Amino acid sequence: MIHKEVPIGVSARHIHLSDEHVELLFGKGYTLTEMKPLSQPGQYAANETVAVVGPKGTFAKVRILGPTRKRTQLEVSRTDAFALGVNPPVRESGDIAGSAGITLQGPAGEIKIEEGVIVAARHIHFHTSDAERFGIGDKQSLRVRFSGERGVVFENVIARVSEQYALDMHIDTDEANAAGVKNGDTAEIVD
Amino acid sequence: MIHKEVPIGVSARHIHLSDEHVELLFGKGYTLTEMKPLSQPGQYAANETVAVVGPKGTFAKVRILGPTRKRTQLEVSRTDAFALGVNPPVRESGDIAGSAGITLQGPAGEIKIEEGVIVAARHIHFHTSDAERFGIGDKQSLRVRFSGERGVVFENVIARVSEQYALDMHIDTDEANAAGVKNGDTAEIVD
Repeated sequence: MIHKEVPIGVSARHIHLSDEHVELLFGKGYTLTEMKPLSQPGQYAANETVAVVGPKGTFAKVRILGPTRKRTQLEVSRTDAFALGVNPPVRESGDIAGSAGITLQGPAGEIKIEEGVIVAARHIHFHTSDAERFGIGDKQSLRVRFSGERGVVFENVIARVSEQYALDMHIDTDEANAAGVKNGDTAEIVD
Repeated sequence: MIHKEVPIGVSARHIHLSDEHVELLFGKGYTLTEMKPLSQPGQYAANETVAVVGPKGTFAKVRILGPTRKRTQLEVSRTDAFALGVNPPVRESGDIAGSAGITLQGPAGEIKIEEGVIVAARHIHFHTSDAERFGIGDKQSLRVRFSGERGVVFENVIARVSEQYALDMHIDTDEANAAGVKNGDTAEIVD
């Protein structure tokens, strides 16, 4: 039996912005600047941050990830959501219809988005070659084991397969803390 | 096969104080007052709170649970620990040797404890009769499944059996958020 080991990437709260929202928050003609590349090819952490203001709390500096997307999307943990006072659904990235709203503040302006706040559903990015090697298909639901003192098996882990992806499992800070793992640790796909 | 269902109790950050520390924080001769009873017989949430001050952050109001104990013990989630700037070990309640220290502030004084800060290891309280019914022994390590959208199986769940206990599984806020569960939901002991 093949040992299906995947590296873990822990996602802290972050935001993806549309071109329109970058200009509303940072000024006409502004473009994001890269601070450092992320594990997925072409993706990067920007130097820029925004303030996120909820009914109960505020995060002063939420990192923007680039490049810009078609629609603005804020990804938070459930713990973050309680602190902000919002109730976002657990969703796959991009699936934001009917999700929670929030207020964003940048140096050039403030906007209120009606939807776009989600708790990201845990998932694994597979390059097509990894998926073939492991015998896993796009959108397949997986069970993934984290061993150690706080050992857990996460169910309902979504497989996402593309030639654009690098092998990486994405979980949020609640999930990482509950499992006692950190960036660069590894997990094993059970089935 | 018997269905081993247990109710879930989510523990937010809280503190147990020694008699000596109650007096140092609240004044000579002070005794805690009960706000509401907890699931375990004789245990209660007190009206009183303390401020917890770490090198990186502060929680202004941490609930005290009574009655007093032999030694002061602060229980936080890993998320809380990062916010405070401390690095407590995952431990069973009462096992605080070599754990993290912190500063506590009350209306009458401030104290610095050298140890006593832990991340509580998840566990299930069984009344002796529940343990017999389920065929489970004290200190046994269990696997427990939470179903639903964020379904997980927690491994290394410690069984604690006593005639003083009521059936209840205790997890912290990181674990509850990662599993998408809340107080009063139920979990199932797998083995």
